[in-house]
Amino acid sequence: MNSHRLIQTRRHAFPIDLDHTALLVIDLQNDFCHTDGFCSHRLGADISNVRNIIPRIQKVIDWARQHGMLVIYTRESHKPDLSDATPCKQLRYENAGYPLGTLGKMGRFLIQGDRGCELIDELQPLETELQIDKPAQSAFIGTNLEAGLRQRNTTHLLFTGVTTECCVLGSYRHASDLGFYGLLLEDCCAAYQIQEHQSAIEVLLGENGAIGWVTTSEQVLTAI
Amino acid sequence: MNSHRLIQTRRHAFPIDLDHTALLVIDLQNDFCHTDGFCSHRLGADISNVRNIIPRIQKVIDWARQHGMLVIYTRESHKPDLSDATPCKQLRYENAGYPLGTLGKMGRFLIQGDRGCELIDELQPLETELQIDKPAQSAFIGTNLEAGLRQRNTTHLLFTGVTTECCVLGSYRHASDLGFYGLLLEDCCAAYQIQEHQSAIEVLLGENGAIGWVTTSEQVLTAI
Repeated sequence: MNSHRLIQTRRHAFPIDLDHTALLVIDLQNDFCHTDGFCSHRLGADISNVRNIIPRIQKVIDWARQHGMLVIYTRESHKPDLSDATPCKQLRYENAGYPLGTLGKMGRFLIQGDRGCELIDELQPLETELQIDKPAQSAFIGTNLEAGLRQRNTTHLLFTGVTTECCVLGSYRHASDLGFYGLLLEDCCAAYQIQEHQSAIEVLLGENGAIGWVTTSEQVLTAI
Repeated sequence: MNSHRLIQTRRHAFPIDLDHTALLVIDLQNDFCHTDGFCSHRLGADISNVRNIIPRIQKVIDWARQHGMLVIYTRESHKPDLSDATPCKQLRYENAGYPLGTLGKMGRFLIQGDRGCELIDELQPLETELQIDKPAQSAFIGTNLEAGLRQRNTTHLLFTGVTTECCVLGSYRHASDLGFYGLLLEDCCAAYQIQEHQSAIEVLLGENGAIGWVTTSEQVLTAI
């Protein structure tokens, strides 16, 4: 069966090639999405938006697995000594009120080995799936993600995760610039503030489609 | 004299180090900003927003030169055979209604050697300044920009140019992820649609400052 299909999006149709597509699940970690995680427990963030997308991502993961698609989970994370966090990143997170490595109820914020840094229980990878630790907001910096995708001849990426304007948009733009065809599933991405999510979507829809493709999980699942 | 200063921004103060700062002027090219360029002449885009920033960028360039700062001008551009444009980028620009290489009044859209691709007359580099051709939206892909900045020990970057949500934001996010301290001068950046500019600024201001710093040229020039 031909693996090429067209998926309807907010602007132009997205030409997917199912045999060369991977699903990215970005930063669904306890520190961002669990009631005891850093953002909710220590910062008092309202995590309802980021939790709302979990069942929809589960559905897309099930669908991807049924189609033999690779699923890749990223974690924004650092070594305990923060040697992989640039001074600029450390300052930005300090300014924002959540210094990397600060102790919370589930361990140090975004530190590898601590419970807060782990993926949420609801979205645990299978043995055959990939988990990638990324020290930057883009998943393509300081990781072997690009090499791994090239090695598998992956050319198309579906984007889900948190937060839309931060690590999802940063990773999308980078992937796109590297030549990967990216499709963002807007109902499977979220930010704490709905306005920040919307701004990121508007950026992706900018320039009449020269930046990227945005659709819903329903469009993807009904097309294939 | 100490080269370290604090500049007020829309959120947190930006700690500049004048001896290690470069000014980036992104894609002020005829095709984007000239009345005979591709976007205005062929697409009928209203270029008033992108032209409004020219005198302000000129003022910042004068100031940067007075302080012995490196000024770097980028051009979004491709070889005449488009061998440096990924198929994904070619499709996105086709979708958007402006295929790379389409003939306009000033030559082929964004093709090196043609007049439309050149920097506008008002913002020509000095002999000692850098001009960088970039095949992607981020200035750090397919270029030697990062290597050049590291070699000069440049750690801080001021961002100006067009369009805010496309090549400016893409370059900013990439620079930031690479560890460069980025400061975006919002009155020296523009998009054709004001809403697209605003969305990009909102993305940068997102997460309470964990993504980036945004200020005005006036704040920079009065601080130093």
